[in-house]
Amino acid sequence: MNIENRYERGLAKLREIDGEAGERVVQSLEGIAPDFARYLIEFPFGDVYSRPGLDLKSREIAVVAALTALGNAAPQLKVHIQAALNVGVTRDEVVETIMQMAVYAGFPAALNGLSAAKEVFAQGDAR
Amino acid sequence: MNIENRYERGLAKLREIDGEAGERVVQSLEGIAPDFARYLIEFPFGDVYSRPGLDLKSREIAVVAALTALGNAAPQLKVHIQAALNVGVTRDEVVETIMQMAVYAGFPAALNGLSAAKEVFAQGDAR
Amino acid sequence: MNIENRYERGLAKLREIDGEAGERVVQSLEGIAPDFARYLIEFPFGDVYSRPGLDLKSREIAVVAALTALGNAAPQLKVHIQAALNVGVTRDEVVETIMQMAVYAGFPAALNGLSAAKEVFAQGDAR
Amino acid sequence: MNIENRYERGLAKLREIDGEAGERVVQSLEGIAPDFARYLIEFPFGDVYSRPGLDLKSREIAVVAALTALGNAAPQLKVHIQAALNVGVTRDEVVETIMQMAVYAGFPAALNGLSAAKEVFAQGDAR
Amino acid sequence: MNIENRYERGLAKLREIDGEAGERVVQSLEGIAPDFARYLIEFPFGDVYSRPGLDLKSREIAVVAALTALGNAAPQLKVHIQAALNVGVTRDEVVETIMQMAVYAGFPAALNGLSAAKEVFAQGDAR
Amino acid sequence: MNIENRYERGLAKLREIDGEAGERVVQSLEGIAPDFARYLIEFPFGDVYSRPGLDLKSREIAVVAALTALGNAAPQLKVHIQAALNVGVTRDEVVETIMQMAVYAGFPAALNGLSAAKEVFAQGDAR
Repeated sequence: MNIENRYERGLAKLREIDGEAGERVVQSLEGIAPDFARYLIEFPFGDVYSRPGLDLKSREIAVVAALTALGNAAPQLKVHIQAALNVGVTRDEVVETIMQMAVYAGFPAALNGLSAAKEVFAQGDAR
Repeated sequence: MNIENRYERGLAKLREIDGEAGERVVQSLEGIAPDFARYLIEFPFGDVYSRPGLDLKSREIAVVAALTALGNAAPQLKVHIQAALNVGVTRDEVVETIMQMAVYAGFPAALNGLSAAKEVFAQGDAR
Repeated sequence: MNIENRYERGLAKLREIDGEAGERVVQSLEGIAPDFARYLIEFPFGDVYSRPGLDLKSREIAVVAALTALGNAAPQLKVHIQAALNVGVTRDEVVETIMQMAVYAGFPAALNGLSAAKEVFAQGDAR
Repeated sequence: MNIENRYERGLAKLREIDGEAGERVVQSLEGIAPDFARYLIEFPFGDVYSRPGLDLKSREIAVVAALTALGNAAPQLKVHIQAALNVGVTRDEVVETIMQMAVYAGFPAALNGLSAAKEVFAQGDAR
Repeated sequence: MNIENRYERGLAKLREIDGEAGERVVQSLEGIAPDFARYLIEFPFGDVYSRPGLDLKSREIAVVAALTALGNAAPQLKVHIQAALNVGVTRDEVVETIMQMAVYAGFPAALNGLSAAKEVFAQGDAR
Repeated sequence: MNIENRYERGLAKLREIDGEAGERVVQSLEGIAPDFARYLIEFPFGDVYSRPGLDLKSREIAVVAALTALGNAAPQLKVHIQAALNVGVTRDEVVETIMQMAVYAGFPAALNGLSAAKEVFAQGDAR
């Protein structure tokens, strides 16, 4: 294994999971922190998402849950609601995951998560 | 459906998921807020966990992820690491879920989550 | 007591406290998670807000304080600043509650809370 | 109004609200950051708590709510549960305030808040 | 030292650090909480920023780091990215500070911090 | 540059910054998530801390500030208060950094940060 493989594996994983939204994030970093785009590809996607011990559906359910609960990263929550759909999580499962967060992070967190999901689903319907 | 069923369904679900730890939480509330014990059984367990749209394994992965990311509820994180194991999540999957949180909530959150998992696994080994 | 009463009691309490804003939240959930609208009416409003042990003014002061301190749920903070006014908290008391949060959650949280209050008060003046 | 008055007014208010626990906090700062003890007396207590626009009971309900919701300041939450009792909030009102936070910050936050209250009430019973 | 000096020292420090953005914050408080504008000038700027033990560059690096990590105060983060530049922190150092937060608060926090920096830098270029 | 170098560079940086405490963290991961120990060495230390654009003193001031403000990672805050001292930040500068957080994250966060610093300084005095 070498660094080129780690970057390439990460880029392929980013495209598989996040699709165009992932590439837009990478592009948005070009003018401000290009090295951070490389780290984003290498560590989360090349290292973590590429691990065999947990399927991508479960990983995205975990991320949608965490970002809903934290409630302070709306753009990333939307990217990962779409990512969850991309890797095979159903809309119903996304909604259940977010609703579950009412118990662990309160109703406002869940309401804002559902509002994000509604927006992402509507964009999907409009395509 | 009536309220008695909702409470009973919740209590059965609490026992299935959280086991003894769940009952200890309910008991600890008796001297301070007995109604809150009832709400805990009825809403999270009678309403949310009893919904058909997401399997219990995924629900517990979501909860372990969220509590690791929030990082401010250590006792509940331990209860839900055990709960995840109770409903069929493997130790490896728990560890992967927590490691994934390094990306979304930082390394300290993941380190403290792994430390909680280590403790819960050791208690399991000692039984 | 039966479920119908719990729902109806919650709906009446939601209207008393949150007014039109509460009904808009319920409506916004129709297309994405109608069951969550029911839970929102039943648990927070049918169960918690309906309890006799703390008056509604104190409950809304507690909620405005908490949402200001958390700082990650701006739409709900605005709903509850209006709700506080609806149940008899004065504008001055809302402002004092938010200012107090500078001590417990920092000046940015208080500044953003005051900005939300300014917006809600202006909407009230325009009616 | 001069600075001496601001400090003295804050110290009197600190003693009225927090009692011995407040003095212990001030003493604990002596070896590490004595100026911070002065700021703590002057700004929160000399400035904010001394304002006329909101009664002390409501201020302490706001603080107990916020610290329960934030969930990351257990020592201060206990000090302010006692402070709430000191200024006339009843035990039942403290419990209701904390329970209400289950709706806005999740059940773990409320459970840990109730656990803190149980401890503070037990210390009171033992005196 | 008297109160007038504390206010005047704070106002001078606010202008030195935050520039026009600081004055806009003070003005925005006039219609809602004028006393809070005074506290903002007196405590953070008159007391804390005026202390000799840490240079202003380090203070602003600390604030940019904290607000990036908290992720729930976007307007204040932008004010302090500009403030950091005002007191001599370079754009590169701002970017490094924010990137470092990926390790301690996760990639979404760092991405949103970098996005804020990009916006502040662009405003600077347009002047 | 190759992966071996990245790991070795990270390990050297971890030892330089965190000293024994860093090695204890790595060892504590051995029985639960050895790959995570590798990531911790490679990404935060091999990638981020090794970057030239910001000196280590400023990086540690940023980390102490962020962990104080977040308030949910006490063990890591203590490690980084010591790390700050290790790379040349003075005790006074650590205390100033933490006090500054009272403005941005509230007095409880600063009080708990000062308490952590007191403990770390006492351990240093006892050596």
